[in-house]
Amino acid sequence: MCGIVGYIGDKNAAPILLNGLKKLEYRGYDSAGVAILDDGDIKVIKCKGRLVNLEEKVDNDTPGGKIGIGHTRWATHGEPNDLNSHPHISNSGKIAVVHNGIIENYLELKEFLEAEGYKFVSETDTEVVAHLIDYHYHGDVVQAVINSINEIEGSYALGVLCRDYPGKFVAARKDSPLVVGLGKGENFIASDIPAILEYTRDVYILEDKEIVLLSDKEVKIFNNYGLAVQKKVFKVNWDVASAEKAGYEHFMMKEMCEEPKVIRDTVSPRIKDDNIVLDNIKITADDLKNIGKIYIVACGTAYHAGVVGKYIIEKLARIPVEVDVASEFRYRDPLICDRDMVIIISQSGETIDTLFALRESKKKGARVLSIVNVVGSSIARESDDVLYTWAGPEIAVASTKAYNTQLSALYLVALDFAYKLGRIEKDYYSNVIEGLKAIPGEIEKVLANRDTIQKFASQHYNAKSIFFIGRGLDYALSMEGSLKLKEISYIHSEAYAGGELKHGTIALIEEGTLVICPMTQDNLVEKMISNIKEVKARGAVVLAIAKESNKQVCKAADVVVTIPDVDSLIAPIVAVTPLQLFAYYMALQKGCDVDKPRNLAKSVTVE
Amino acid sequence: MCGIVGYIGDKNAAPILLNGLKKLEYRGYDSAGVAILDDGDIKVIKCKGRLVNLEEKVDNDTPGGKIGIGHTRWATHGEPNDLNSHPHISNSGKIAVVHNGIIENYLELKEFLEAEGYKFVSETDTEVVAHLIDYHYHGDVVQAVINSINEIEGSYALGVLCRDYPGKFVAARKDSPLVVGLGKGENFIASDIPAILEYTRDVYILEDKEIVLLSDKEVKIFNNYGLAVQKKVFKVNWDVASAEKAGYEHFMMKEMCEEPKVIRDTVSPRIKDDNIVLDNIKITADDLKNIGKIYIVACGTAYHAGVVGKYIIEKLARIPVEVDVASEFRYRDPLICDRDMVIIISQSGETIDTLFALRESKKKGARVLSIVNVVGSSIARESDDVLYTWAGPEIAVASTKAYNTQLSALYLVALDFAYKLGRIEKDYYSNVIEGLKAIPGEIEKVLANRDTIQKFASQHYNAKSIFFIGRGLDYALSMEGSLKLKEISYIHSEAYAGGELKHGTIALIEEGTLVICPMTQDNLVEKMISNIKEVKARGAVVLAIAKESNKQVCKAADVVVTIPDVDSLIAPIVAVTPLQLFAYYMALQKGCDVDKPRNLAKSVTVE
Repeated sequence: MCGIVGYIGDKNAAPILLNGLKKLEYRGYDSAGVAILDDGDIKVIKCKGRLVNLEEKVDNDTPGGKIGIGHTRWATHGEPNDLNSHPHISNSGKIAVVHNGIIENYLELKEFLEAEGYKFVSETDTEVVAHLIDYHYHGDVVQAVINSINEIEGSYALGVLCRDYPGKFVAARKDSPLVVGLGKGENFIASDIPAILEYTRDVYILEDKEIVLLSDKEVKIFNNYGLAVQKKVFKVNWDVASAEKAGYEHFMMKEMCEEPKVIRDTVSPRIKDDNIVLDNIKITADDLKNIGKIYIVACGTAYHAGVVGKYIIEKLARIPVEVDVASEFRYRDPLICDRDMVIIISQSGETIDTLFALRESKKKGARVLSIVNVVGSSIARESDDVLYTWAGPEIAVASTKAYNTQLSALYLVALDFAYKLGRIEKDYYSNVIEGLKAIPGEIEKVLANRDTIQKFASQHYNAKSIFFIGRGLDYALSMEGSLKLKEISYIHSEAYAGGELKHGTIALIEEGTLVICPMTQDNLVEKMISNIKEVKARGAVVLAIAKESNKQVCKAADVVVTIPDVDSLIAPIVAVTPLQLFAYYMALQKGCDVDKPRNLAKSVTVE
Repeated sequence: MCGIVGYIGDKNAAPILLNGLKKLEYRGYDSAGVAILDDGDIKVIKCKGRLVNLEEKVDNDTPGGKIGIGHTRWATHGEPNDLNSHPHISNSGKIAVVHNGIIENYLELKEFLEAEGYKFVSETDTEVVAHLIDYHYHGDVVQAVINSINEIEGSYALGVLCRDYPGKFVAARKDSPLVVGLGKGENFIASDIPAILEYTRDVYILEDKEIVLLSDKEVKIFNNYGLAVQKKVFKVNWDVASAEKAGYEHFMMKEMCEEPKVIRDTVSPRIKDDNIVLDNIKITADDLKNIGKIYIVACGTAYHAGVVGKYIIEKLARIPVEVDVASEFRYRDPLICDRDMVIIISQSGETIDTLFALRESKKKGARVLSIVNVVGSSIARESDDVLYTWAGPEIAVASTKAYNTQLSALYLVALDFAYKLGRIEKDYYSNVIEGLKAIPGEIEKVLANRDTIQKFASQHYNAKSIFFIGRGLDYALSMEGSLKLKEISYIHSEAYAGGELKHGTIALIEEGTLVICPMTQDNLVEKMISNIKEVKARGAVVLAIAKESNKQVCKAADVVVTIPDVDSLIAPIVAVTPLQLFAYYMALQKGCDVDKPRNLAKSVTVE
């Protein structure tokens, strides 16, 4: 996480940096800061808390320079306070650094630098970078950065200002994202495209261990041996408006309301003459027959999409699937081989645990298919096949529309694989495709009927503990519903398989405990009603998410939110929306910052 | 859950029934009751709450009959109140019934019986059984029970008293456990052996759809066509003392203190001349080579043992393993076939979700190996191979020593499979065996050093939310640590993979939130320290469980509980004990009933 920006050109740097940071605030907002080179001096302004605090400070005393770097922080090493905020500056005052990532060998480097006489003022890993570059600096800052990154272990996107270079600054990356924006008489760096999209649509996407030297007129790129690198310009084809709130109170509500559109955008172009055609994916029936196993690897919300993926790929295509949390996958020495396929899911395409899992899989010879939202992201570039979700930019930290499109993509994959393998009949295949095409309309109905959820939330937002229970696909859905609620309302909630609650956790159910029960699976309705009775016998208040035609549930649950009667197999894409709305209204009632929950960042680029 | 007993003989039934129920209270304690036949009349005494309430009622007005049935309840249908307590009696007063299980078609049967004029007074599914037997009764109660169970769908262990049969009573079972105790001039039924162990060691273990007619001198068994069945007497070879508290304040503490002994009992007899010999298990190297995949299926604590099992079997034997929650396994149409092996784990051997998963696996042709504690239990009897854990009777509802022995058994299996397949070297195999043999001594050290944990608990027992984080095997351990805490202290806690917390749940970490970090995996210590720093940066208080030699952790965590330096692979068997102790002391400080947590029952015999 963390977001960095940098500017050099003919305008005042401060407002441009602040504007860029505003677009990157989703990546972290524990503290923020800028460093600006003006009149042969580096001026650093930084402080704890949201960007607005920094804005005030800058407003009171705006620096005048036309070259600078900025940072918005998600704390890893050291608590979020003024001292630990970036930029960090070397003792000599010569070098200022902003950094996104984690320096793994910072303790060793720190000891070495302390022995060399450097004094550390913060608890961060980043400060070693400032001193290290200072140590290696003997007049050539590019060489100093190269020498430094050759000694650093870990991940980084760096912006480096040097007092002796009034018209230039340096950037570099490894495992943390960084783009270079190419303007006219001005150039930029940023962790993500929206930060610079008002100024330019032409970008370089940096590769690992590339170093950039930017001036107002020129951008030079080197590898870590100091050799020049030629790069292709990447044209951004989406616009600023799609990264704005467009009249909604929050990005999260805007993005939920976009679900019908983005599911349509993700599904429709892949259906040609009633057949699924996955663009750019060249996986044949023979390839599929040779697959031993599919691993789905992801984190957070994308992992929950993967749990649905396992269920439907196994059910339709009858290929064994294992879903893994990316941070665990790498270290558990998985039994993966060159006959296996790995499906990687990530909205940003930069999630570092997921990216490393991808590399591990490729090293072991597996074929990697990624389901990614951001075009040109690291995961997209390093995969054998990419199926993009066309969700557009997702700004709210809590993912909503991206999840629905990830599910849509997984259904396309499962159906396509199953049909190619001859494991489902043409009629069934066509029916499910028709069902998928109708989903956007069904979600519109759910969005139009959100009053029940809003009312329920207004009555129960003080809940301290909430449980989500479901069976089969509804269990996968429960995991996502629970995570959404936790992320933005800070209420401790947890998802359980309907039949598993009684093996311990039911001890926590007492008078008034909320239990949320998605029950979209027709063959499991009876069992879920038994589970509802068990928790109600202990005093629970039950909110069920059920199909219109499910009349039994009204007798069992306290409140029922209905969804249209869609086929149980594809019901999760529709039924997640009420859960997202529930989280939204609970957080709103509690007065939480819906779009920027505490401690979180949108794209997780540390392990 | 629920426990039933029955008595016929020459003594007063009431005290014997109460004594038996006391031994079964671990199976449920929402309400209790007895029905006693005296002088041509059935007298029912029952009430809400713990058994002690019933004892008071019986003491005030002891019925005099020498034949009766009793029940202790874990509520499924209808809240725990006097009316819903068992026994239930038919409108005519002729038939009294106690029941453990769930009648799935009770709504249909209820409608039918209401149309026939029966009046229902409770909300339970059991009451239909009383009325149904009454409806079918025309002078022959065995025939009435047979006709009734042929109409009932679901699970049951039944005790049936009939007013017209002063010297006999009837019992039957399907999918819920029931044993018949054979005395001299007296006979018994009970859900579990401890209830009758003071009176006899000779028992019949009933099979599904068997019906028993008991008098003081005779026990006749029939199948559901009314044909006589011959059964073998099973001799119980453990004694009453092992089911008593032996001076400890709680069974849970007694059982934790038994861990060194029971691990030794489980491991030592299977090591002969430095080789593992799994008694009664005839799985050859050729069998192993033909295994496509191993499924581990279990619930609750046993499921968490399974998560460790997956890790070590894959690591050592390189056979792919999938772990499943039993209640989910059955309904997700798993891709299981006759080349697969299923490992079933259950302390009681009666967990119904697990039992049904076993039957589903056998139907699909898989070979079933079960790891079970109770000899002669349903799961043990229906498995192809059984590896008993010799943990002795576990009475505390929260499982402790059984978990340690389940882990021990899984290590034996993993090592044996790996060595037979030639996937590990002789030296390594011998080293790990030596390590396993040393575990009891290591746990003794942990038990002796419990002051740190007790002190920490006394400072933090008011915590509202607690997180457990770990990586690899420590993640599996975290799941079990969190469940233990929830079960007995009612504190909402949750386990996360160390790298996954930041994908949402870290939003819940605030000033003072407790985070418990087992970190026994040497290769993951660095990563865990980064995760500790992340949560500490948000104000968390961190308790780490780490090896003595891990000096780094003292700088990162607030409090460190050390375990001896055992090999990381087998560390979970040792490191779970501090987590169990932590749960124990937290619950004790909060004044909770450690051995009988609310809402729970020891052996879960409903779905």
